[in-house]
Amino acid sequence: MAFPPDATLADAGEFGLISALTDLFAQGPHVLIGPGDDAAVLRVKTGHVVVSTDLMVEGRHFRRDWASASDVGHRAAAQNLSDINAMGGRATSLTIGLAAPADLPVAWALEFAQGFADECALVGASVVGGDLTRSDQLVIAVTVLGACTQAPVVRSGAEPGDVVAIFGRQGWAAGGLAVLGRGFRSPRVLVEAYRRPEPPYDAGAVAAEAGATAMIDISDGLLADAGHIAEDSGVSMDIFRSAFDVAEPLQAVGSALGADPLQFILGGGDDHALLATFPAGSVPEGWHVIGEVAEAADDGPRVTVDGAAYDGPTGWTHF
Amino acid sequence: MAFPPDATLADAGEFGLISALTDLFAQGPHVLIGPGDDAAVLRVKTGHVVVSTDLMVEGRHFRRDWASASDVGHRAAAQNLSDINAMGGRATSLTIGLAAPADLPVAWALEFAQGFADECALVGASVVGGDLTRSDQLVIAVTVLGACTQAPVVRSGAEPGDVVAIFGRQGWAAGGLAVLGRGFRSPRVLVEAYRRPEPPYDAGAVAAEAGATAMIDISDGLLADAGHIAEDSGVSMDIFRSAFDVAEPLQAVGSALGADPLQFILGGGDDHALLATFPAGSVPEGWHVIGEVAEAADDGPRVTVDGAAYDGPTGWTHF
Repeated sequence: MAFPPDATLADAGEFGLISALTDLFAQGPHVLIGPGDDAAVLRVKTGHVVVSTDLMVEGRHFRRDWASASDVGHRAAAQNLSDINAMGGRATSLTIGLAAPADLPVAWALEFAQGFADECALVGASVVGGDLTRSDQLVIAVTVLGACTQAPVVRSGAEPGDVVAIFGRQGWAAGGLAVLGRGFRSPRVLVEAYRRPEPPYDAGAVAAEAGATAMIDISDGLLADAGHIAEDSGVSMDIFRSAFDVAEPLQAVGSALGADPLQFILGGGDDHALLATFPAGSVPEGWHVIGEVAEAADDGPRVTVDGAAYDGPTGWTHF
Repeated sequence: MAFPPDATLADAGEFGLISALTDLFAQGPHVLIGPGDDAAVLRVKTGHVVVSTDLMVEGRHFRRDWASASDVGHRAAAQNLSDINAMGGRATSLTIGLAAPADLPVAWALEFAQGFADECALVGASVVGGDLTRSDQLVIAVTVLGACTQAPVVRSGAEPGDVVAIFGRQGWAAGGLAVLGRGFRSPRVLVEAYRRPEPPYDAGAVAAEAGATAMIDISDGLLADAGHIAEDSGVSMDIFRSAFDVAEPLQAVGSALGADPLQFILGGGDDHALLATFPAGSVPEGWHVIGEVAEAADDGPRVTVDGAAYDGPTGWTHF
């Protein structure tokens, strides 16, 4: 269906738009029944399914003046696919709920959906269903389903003596967000990292096969997410400042904003790097050791940086 | 965790509230990993999974002054569980995304979650994950997973010669909504039907086993949803006025509002009754025949009432 270039969701109507959107979503061979019925039906091989859900709210998780519709689509898919990655799984299927103002341009919705579909295609996952309704504020609700070929890696398995390792770029998206928040558009490479993260989709399953004892994707911030593992595993963790090479663009932003660039790395989320613990000697290729696991402190699990509490910004509060 | 009686989500904080909410959700034996990790992991017996997602937006799909938090929870669960019912399946697991204003009372969120959990318990389904974030407007995003023990019943299988049948109360919720919309609170039985629908959760699987050729849950309105089956099956349908006994409370509302009470039955959604087509002679017990399937008209599939176009309100437009 073709829409006039300035058409809004109200002009297009629910069913016309749903039809145009679902045309963008290729269905994999595991999809027995795709979008358009009361529910989708998926073939499941492994006897279990991994499922996660995430919300993105305009003005809070994204801004239409800071990122294109396609970027928002990529990011909405990426942050959900990353949750399956963090279990050591592979994503197969997603649903999208879109609550949108009636004056949202149809073109925005279609570009969003195309970006979402393109990100899903990176891992071979299909968009199998969704819902579309009117709201005052744009809210994107995504649920992702996946499979693991081995035992899923939870947050609670870290053991004293394990090493802490990371896979993927970390702090770049936070640097980009800091830049955008001050009205700048450069360094461009950081802004792009914020607009369109590149989660290491293969690293999760590899880590699981290598015997990772705990794993999480970094979305609240490195230290905050390390804290989730520490808390759930009943251990403490120490992170080494010296493990991080601060990339040149992050150094530039630190200088420009008068901030320690390490705060983007230790406090930032949004890159969807993976953080995991491994028995010493089991760290697979591509993973970078940044710390170690110890017995919980007398007053409970804690995460330290070079043996001391970190006093910089450490993550994201949702309320 | 106990909260002061007037605590808001902003007071409680994300993690405190998530912990209190997940305490309300009992986990069934099929849940290998429940809420609290990057993703939940579910055991799947039948080799496939049925999945559907729905959004509810405050002011559009519910009003806090028209229904209690518990009612909204029941309804949010019911409309999703009903989608699995309409495939002939049984729901096993759900996720909830809650985007909520910071001043939402914690008590509201907890009562909502309890109502949601209670509705899920009716079918033995577990709430296995979710997301909680701040927004200006209250938006509830639910995804439901389920299983079928036989081939799922889609919308596209109706054949000329089939009969059209319904299972469950129909029009009561629409009557209740009309009453509330005019500032009244009675007939109470209709208002309650709107606030807390009672979908016939066992009827879908029974219909599938009996050989239903197409099925849908009535959420857009009886004629609108009949239209979805007609369109997807490439058939026409005729609905018989004489098939409906207009219940006394609906007659009362019709008289009070000067409306034909049949419009609530033919146009109303929200009761989540099931509509299905069966080969003549295969209609299982409890299903009520209300029409018949014919070849599509020359100009395409259509739904008529006593052989003619229906000119009353016929359903719900989302944009």
